[in-house]
Formats: sequence, structure tokens, C-alpha cells
Amino acid sequence: MFQTFDAKSDPTLNPPRIAALREWLAANNLDGFLVPRADEHQGEYVAARSERLRWLTGFTGSAGVALIMRDRAYIFVDGRYQLQVRGEVDMSIFTVENLIETPPPVWMRDNLGKGARIGFDPWLHTVGDVKALKASAEKVGAALVPLQRNPIDILWTDQPKPPLAPVEIHPNALAGEIAKDKLARLAAGLSKEGATHAVLTDPSSVAWTFNIRGNDVPHTPLALGFAILAAEGPHLLFMDKRKLPRETEAYLTQLTDLYQPGALEAELTRLAKSGARIALDSALAADRLRMLIEDNGGSVVAATDPARLPRATKNQAEIAGARAAHRRDAAAVIKLLCWLDRQPAGSLDEITVVTKLEESRATVGRETQMPLRDVSFDTISGAGPNGAIMHYRVSRQSNRKINAGELFLLDSGAQYQDGTTDITRTMAIGTPTDEMRERFTIVLKGMIAISILRFPAGTRGQDIDAFARIAHWKAGLDFAHGTGHGVGSYLSVHEGPQRIAKTGTEKLLEGMMLSNEPGYYKEGHYGIRIENLILVTPAQQISGGDIAMHGFETLTLVPIDRRLVRSDLLSPEELAWLNAYHARVMDEIAPMVGGEELKWLEAATAPIG
Amino acid sequence: MFQTFDAKSDPTLNPPRIAALREWLAANNLDGFLVPRADEHQGEYVAARSERLRWLTGFTGSAGVALIMRDRAYIFVDGRYQLQVRGEVDMSIFTVENLIETPPPVWMRDNLGKGARIGFDPWLHTVGDVKALKASAEKVGAALVPLQRNPIDILWTDQPKPPLAPVEIHPNALAGEIAKDKLARLAAGLSKEGATHAVLTDPSSVAWTFNIRGNDVPHTPLALGFAILAAEGPHLLFMDKRKLPRETEAYLTQLTDLYQPGALEAELTRLAKSGARIALDSALAADRLRMLIEDNGGSVVAATDPARLPRATKNQAEIAGARAAHRRDAAAVIKLLCWLDRQPAGSLDEITVVTKLEESRATVGRETQMPLRDVSFDTISGAGPNGAIMHYRVSRQSNRKINAGELFLLDSGAQYQDGTTDITRTMAIGTPTDEMRERFTIVLKGMIAISILRFPAGTRGQDIDAFARIAHWKAGLDFAHGTGHGVGSYLSVHEGPQRIAKTGTEKLLEGMMLSNEPGYYKEGHYGIRIENLILVTPAQQISGGDIAMHGFETLTLVPIDRRLVRSDLLSPEELAWLNAYHARVMDEIAPMVGGEELKWLEAATAPIG
Repeated sequence: MFQTFDAKSDPTLNPPRIAALREWLAANNLDGFLVPRADEHQGEYVAARSERLRWLTGFTGSAGVALIMRDRAYIFVDGRYQLQVRGEVDMSIFTVENLIETPPPVWMRDNLGKGARIGFDPWLHTVGDVKALKASAEKVGAALVPLQRNPIDILWTDQPKPPLAPVEIHPNALAGEIAKDKLARLAAGLSKEGATHAVLTDPSSVAWTFNIRGNDVPHTPLALGFAILAAEGPHLLFMDKRKLPRETEAYLTQLTDLYQPGALEAELTRLAKSGARIALDSALAADRLRMLIEDNGGSVVAATDPARLPRATKNQAEIAGARAAHRRDAAAVIKLLCWLDRQPAGSLDEITVVTKLEESRATVGRETQMPLRDVSFDTISGAGPNGAIMHYRVSRQSNRKINAGELFLLDSGAQYQDGTTDITRTMAIGTPTDEMRERFTIVLKGMIAISILRFPAGTRGQDIDAFARIAHWKAGLDFAHGTGHGVGSYLSVHEGPQRIAKTGTEKLLEGMMLSNEPGYYKEGHYGIRIENLILVTPAQQISGGDIAMHGFETLTLVPIDRRLVRSDLLSPEELAWLNAYHARVMDEIAPMVGGEELKWLEAATAPIG
Repeated sequence: MFQTFDAKSDPTLNPPRIAALREWLAANNLDGFLVPRADEHQGEYVAARSERLRWLTGFTGSAGVALIMRDRAYIFVDGRYQLQVRGEVDMSIFTVENLIETPPPVWMRDNLGKGARIGFDPWLHTVGDVKALKASAEKVGAALVPLQRNPIDILWTDQPKPPLAPVEIHPNALAGEIAKDKLARLAAGLSKEGATHAVLTDPSSVAWTFNIRGNDVPHTPLALGFAILAAEGPHLLFMDKRKLPRETEAYLTQLTDLYQPGALEAELTRLAKSGARIALDSALAADRLRMLIEDNGGSVVAATDPARLPRATKNQAEIAGARAAHRRDAAAVIKLLCWLDRQPAGSLDEITVVTKLEESRATVGRETQMPLRDVSFDTISGAGPNGAIMHYRVSRQSNRKINAGELFLLDSGAQYQDGTTDITRTMAIGTPTDEMRERFTIVLKGMIAISILRFPAGTRGQDIDAFARIAHWKAGLDFAHGTGHGVGSYLSVHEGPQRIAKTGTEKLLEGMMLSNEPGYYKEGHYGIRIENLILVTPAQQISGGDIAMHGFETLTLVPIDRRLVRSDLLSPEELAWLNAYHARVMDEIAPMVGGEELKWLEAATAPIG
């Protein structure tokens, strides 16, 4: 199993740890210390040694910051974790703050006293974050103190070592562009930005650029490491050599100079002293890197990570891989759904389904000789009211029977070497209520609106997000998350910069892969989400039109529960889309299933209305 | 008539003027000089003396900048003026640049030589503009030199004097909030921003805040002047006392200390020297104001114009005024349309219609005792291919017969004391083609999509702009302007910050007034635009819904040409909206017309199949 169902924290451990940190603060003349849920790479998944926030506070969410003051302590989490955090941290110690409405810079401006000294680890905060924090601190006469060593690392005596999973070469048949060519492209771009070098701090960018994959963090095939790209001369890759099998090392040696991770500071210092102009992405790069460059006479060029857009716009090999991965994944999910439908209502629980689904993916992966490498995130398996918790993760404590008359929301994904998947389906268990069917159909209308959209070059994700909500709005409803996130190619299932959301300022370019996942959540009752992955297609002329228009190709190929569709609420165009989609699912997936499952698929994809 | 049809420039005058400026540059050790189409208030309409760009170059558009270098000259205009500028400026002197794609800061970064000295008048560029220009100049080692006196004002011997139109009190029955209360509201807001004062540089803000109206510029009832609001103590209003009738002066004296315009620099210097923290809106305030404050020891607080949002969210009196103004204006436009339909095809030209429309508005205004004060902009009267020129202004040279088989686009507005209107209708002259009817219906679908929208609090203009385009996109079409702009209450017909456009980052708040005007333009053939003004309604609960939803009330009440509607392309919901709209037009406007016009209105608003 690639996922566990244990409650992750023992709450009795935290108070003594916080007490020890406070002693350390007092001894070091600090009034507070910031503990973000972050590693040096600002990744969504971090290695065990970087779970400092969890170790200190017990909070297990994927985003958050604690501010431990001498006599008070605050934990900042976003809307989705407001409930969870209260069950995980010791509420006699912590006050919960809203990470979005009063993030630490705002909080500090409003609450810090004059002369207060707040420590932080400059490896764990980005250049942009520190700028905002410093500005706030200065406004109230407080100081933000960068620390040479993170006190948690001093206090955490059994802190795990950095991971050393073997690094493999990502084959060119799947990558579609050799690393030498990618490096040449990126190097050419640096000069245009007026930079001599760029630090790649995001391991996704390192993996994409060098065509390598690793296994250092859960659910994403990353090899943790930094790279310094050079506009001229050799590139520098900082990666523990113990992770490099001989073949990988030989391969990388042809592309770059190889250094141990510990050499990064010295090499960056050397470059800075030689007057290098080094590009950093202020939203991604650790402030420590900026300090190293600026303190040693180099200059920082503010520029977005040069690999982000090239990585986001998938080439033909990556697209072909994604299509194959989605067909395989569809077969696995369909087998699960067929099995689910055959179980007596009330006989299953959330964990059983997660386990069975992972087995199904593993089996289909083995059979098609493209094994399941990992799940792309912890499966969200939410029965009844648990489905309304947007980022629910089932544990043995929360595990719930899947009862008749309830909805069951299943959001999961797989990592295959040819592609990353992410799919949500919501199923009726027993007989759904009229309201459930109406709300499901509203969500489906939003999903279809995005699926059938045509749009001109230059359209940004934020320009189209509301199409997924218009049916909701008409009924007085909405959902409190974006419509879609970017997805990587056997990389992170949440990949920037592309997204369909109010914050989606990036243009949608041919080859970008995104999720399309509107939802509806009735707290305490049920959750609905329907999610397909979609691919931005090349702009094509429309008969009689003036301008070529992009569109989306749907990659995900799994039936949408017909029992929840009220066809009377669908327009003829929407109904046509749904029936065509189901016909395509039948057409493409039927060859991969047989017997009972084929029968189930036929019924599940039969035309409606 | 409030508008003229003269070609505005005599091209033989410009070369000697430019030569004179170049001599002045040489004598003053400058390599270039920036001439923006702007006054000290960054208004859309400027007084005659501020038409420096037109005087120098011949360009008559409402936005643009010239950069006169010793041996070359450049004029930067946006997409809508690319054609026009080439007909107005001497192309043997000027190179045309795109104001949006390569604005002066970008152009200067790419083209200025090291050591170049470019002069500018800091009264005519905003703080934000100058910041961008300076950053570019510094990058290439050039200098941006603020000038004490604008050389155009030295060379322009018959430059008109500042306007002195009388200032009137805007009655409280129409303003809905007395100026004393508005001033108290704004003063309270200043302290929250950490400012002791704020300079109101936008005459719209001065007019709204003090409940006064003037007539210093065309088409907008502005009294040019500045105000300095004080968080504590007396406010300062800088306005030529010759503009103030005794009653107005007595009224203003109760609200503020009154100063002559020339006293602004001295008073700002005095405040700065006393350590004042003065709020400036960097997108609106002249850089000269920033210099005055910073050079004299004060500090500038960057903050948006405090009157912008209060002015944009109309109160009940302003809304009532808008409704009345729109009913009156509808009667005037309907009389014109009825008359237009009775004329033999080919007997009319564009100017005749403009003249007749203004007469109709003047007549109805007189009859209803709310006289037409001005048109709210130069009417766009475009027959056939002229309709495809987005910001067409008819002159005696361009005047075109309105022929059978063509479309006729008429975009106009009025200034009444109770409200500002802006309406576009596109009419079939004779028999339209199938394509015209199809495209008209596509535009109509976009207009209806906005009209029927419901949306939650927090929705921004940019979130909904694409609803006006979705029918276009599906057909491979688009239009190259935003869907809607904000509109003032007997103030500017183009009012910020609200807008429905890709750039509409402002939340749509109850009481905001906007235009809803999708279009379609087939260059060389025809233009289509349908424009209603709309008002953001209070959020209201929808039966069965979770969240109260805003919507739009349509203010404009003029039939949409039924001959151009292809009802087979409308959804039942769209058709229902159109028929309900026409029924409402009939219901509300029939009492204001009679005879032939009533018959015409009945036919024009009859339900469609």
C-alpha cells in the first residue's frame, strides 16, 4: 500500500516539545519562531525529516504555519483545515488563525510589539514571504531574525535523515525531449532575462529538466536536489551521489557538473563573488539563497522558474503517455466501480474501498506492464457527511460505513511512468434523494461547461473559472475551491503555473494539462465532485469563424453515475456531450475489461434520455 | 449642438511646431520630450488648453503619447487608433508605436541610448507612470528630467486660458447624501490608511465629494480643481473663485477652506513641511504632487482615491435618478428610431441622425423639465463599414449615407442632472443578410448572458466578462474590447474602478452602475454592438439555495431590433428574457410617447415566436 490509515499524531508529545522550543527561544534572546509546513524546495509533499510543523504541533495538514511565542502560540491554516487543526493541536496551547484572511505578515503587523524579535529559518521561507514578513515587522518596530540553524533540528533528536531513494533516468520515449535540448532552451532564455545563472529550487523542475525521477517524498517521483543553470559554461547539479545508480550518474555527468548537496552554499557564494546575475523565483526560492547571493556581491534577478512553462506545456510524447495512462487508470477505476456496485449496501467502509482501488490499479498496471509506481495523493474516500469535508483523509478513527441512501465521493490518482492521473467520481449508494440528484446534475453542468468550452489564445484560467459555477449560482449555490489545477507528466499531481481558478492569471497554452473538478458540499450531509483531467488542444479554425479557438480534450475515461443525472435539467448540448463521452468511454475501455465488468460498463455508458 | 463634425486638425501646422520644440530641446540640453494626451487630472476629457498632443501632432484621439526626439519622433496609440493616427499625423515625421504592446517605458528600455536626457512635465504623468519610465531609463543609463515648465505652453502662443464655467450645487435630492457626511466618511477612512491627508486629483471625486458640478470639459459636468482632505481639521479646496457663483461659494465655505488653484503647491509644501502623511493614488495623481510632498519632508501614503468606491456604489437617490434618466432617454431614443424607420433608405446620412437624436433628447428633456445638459460623449453613428470602427466619430469628411442592406450602429448618451446614460443599438436598414442576423443574435446572447447572471458576493468583473463572449467563441468569433465600463451619476460616462473586462479586478458591489455592451465587428463591412446600462442589485436569497446572490437590473429601456434576431438561435431562457424586456419597455415607455411612435413601439416590442 502506498497510503496508510493511521492517525498521524500522538498529542501528548507536543507540549514538552513546545516547552523545549520556548526554552531555546529564551536562551537565544528571541520572542518567537516561525514553523512553516515547508521544506527547502517548497514542495507539497516533504520528506519525513521536514515534517517539523507536525513534529512540533501535531498538525498533519499540507499547508500551515505555527508562530510559537514565549507565552502564546498561534497556528495559521486555511479554510479546509479549520476543523481538522482543532482536533490535532493542543488547543490549550494554540490559537487558530486563518492563513488566508490574517496570514502571518498581517497578524504580525497587528499584534507584534515594538522590539519583538521573531526568528525564522531562511531555508524554509521564500524570498517573497520574507519580504512581506519583514515589511510587516518593520512597520511595528519588530525584527525578523534569520537563524543559522533551525532550532527544531536541534531539539528533534530522532529526526530522520534526508531520503536517499535511487534516481532513475526518465526514458526519452516518455519525456519526448532529451535533457541536452531542454538545457539549451533554458540557458538561451536566461540571457534574455539578463541573468548569467538561475537556481532551480523546485525538484519538479530539476526532474523535468534533466529527465530524471526519484522517490524522496510520498506520491511524487521527485529526487530532492538543487540545480544552477548557467547561460554559458557548465550547469551545476546538487544531489547526493548515494542516490545515483552508476547508469544515472554516468548519464548526468554528460549534462552537468555534479556536486554533493552540501556544496550548494559554497558554489553559490563563489558565483556571487564573481559578479554573477542569478535568477531566483521569489515565489519558490528560499530566502537563504537570496542572502547568499546578495551578501557575496552577486545580484538577484527576479524571474519565474524557467522550467515552469516548458514543463507545463506537454509535448506529443507526454500527451501520448497521458492518454495511455488514463486508459489504463480508467480500466482500474471501472473494475473498482463494478465491484462496488456488486457489494451489498452497508457491507463496505471507506478504507476497504481505498485498499481495493489501489489493488485494482496495481493489478491493471502489472497486466499492462506499466506498474503502479505510487498513488498520486492520499485517496479521498468520503461516505455521506465525510464527502463534504473537502480534503478528507480517511483514518481508522474516521473510517465510516458506506450506507444506502448516501453519496460516496472517491477522489484518487495514480503515478505511472507514462503519466499522472487524478479522478473524482461520486456514486449513489442505494437510492439518492431528489436534492442529491439535482445538485449532482448542477455540478455535472459545470463540468460539461468547461469540457465543451472553446476559447481564443490569451484566455487565462481565471477568465473561464465561472463557467463551472454558473449553474450553481443560478440555484444559489457555489463551491469553495478552484475549478482545476495543473497536472504534471509523471510528476506532481498539483503542478503550476496553470490553473482554472479566480487566481488563475496564467494563459492557457496548448499542451497544458489541468483538472476540471467542480463540486458541491452540503456540510454534515454529503459531498459531490466530478473530476476529469483535460488537455488544452491546439487552436483550430471553426467553420465560418474569424479566429482559431482552443478547446479541451478530456483525458479521463470513466462513467459518470447515471443514477444521479437528472437529464431534464440538462440542455440538449449537455446531454449530447454526456452521451458522447460515455460512448467514447465504452469504445476505448471495453477492450480492457471483460465478463461482469464489461456488462457493467455497457450499462454504465448506455445513452440517457 | 453639443458635438461638432469638423475634422479637428490642419496637418500643415504641425511640422513647424515640432521644429520649434526641437530647437527648444537643443537649447535646453534635452534629447527628447514626452507629450501625453493628459491634463493635471488624468481625465478622459480635457480643457482646450490641455490638448497639447493635438496641437503638436494633429492626433485627436482620447489616449496617446508622443515622444519627440531631436531627429526622430514617435507616437504611441492603442489598437483602436492605429488607423486614425496615420491619417492625422505627418507620417514623414512620426513612427507609430503600439501603446499597449510597447508603451513608452518598454520602448525606452529597448531604444534609448546611454546618457540620453528625456524631459517630461511632472504635472501630466502619474506617480505610477513616472516610476515605470524612470526604472526603464535607469536600466539603460538614460535620465528622465522633470521640467519646471512645459515647453508646449511656452511655444503655444495662443493657448486657451483655463476654463471658468460656473460651478453649481448638485441638489441633495439627486446626490442622496450631503457633502458634510461624505467628507466625514472619507476623513474617517484616511486615519485607517495611516494618512493625515489625501489629495483628490480626479475632478469626478471632487464633484462627488462636495456635491458640485461644473462645465469645464466637454461632455462631463466637471469643475476642474484639486482638494486636500484632512483626517482632522479643515479640508482645502483649490478652485478658481471666478467659477463660483455667490450661492456656490457660500455653500462651499461651510464645508472647506477655499483657495485659488495657484495656492496648491504652497499649501502642499506647508503640509509636507509639517510632517503630514499624504495619501496619493499612484494611478491618478500627478508625479509633481509626489515630488512636492517628498521634497519637503512629508511622506506619501500610496492609497486609492478614497472617493472612488463610495462614488461607484450608488445610493437610493442616485439609483432613482438613474432610472428616471433612463426612462426619459429611452423615450428620446425611441422617437429617433421610429423616425429613422420612416425615412426612405438612402435618404439619411450619419450626421443627420446624430443631429436628430440630439434634438430628440433636447425636446424630451425640455418637456420633462429635466433638460439635456450635454451628450455624455461624441455620438458614434456608423453606417455599414464605419460601424466596424470601434471608436468611430463622424466628421463631414467621413460622413456616409445609410444605405439599404447595411447595418447602422448608433452609440450615444446623455447628461441629465439626474443621471448619465449610454446606449448602443444596431439597426437593420432594409433587408439584412443571414450572416448579419446570425452575428447580431450571437452578440445578443452575450448581452443576455450578463443581464440574467446571478453571482455571489466577491465576484469581480473579470470573473464574468467571458459570459458575454461564450457564444462568440463557440462560433470562432470575439470582440476586442471589454464587456462593460462603470458609469457615473451625472458624472463621467466612463467611471472607475468597476468594469466587466479581463482587467476588471474590482469586486462588483451593490449599487455599481456598468455598461453591458458586447459587440462584433467585421472590418470593412459592418459593426454590431448592443449596449444597456445595468445596476448591481442587492444579494438576494434564491429559493432552495445556500447563498444570497447578486444580479443586474437593466436600466436602459429601448427595443432591440427584432428584424436582426434569429429566435431559433436563442435558448428558451434567452427568448423569455428578450420578450420580458420588450414587455417592460412597452410598459414603462408607452406612457411617454404617442401616435405614430406608440404604434412603432408596440410593433418593436411585440413578443417573438
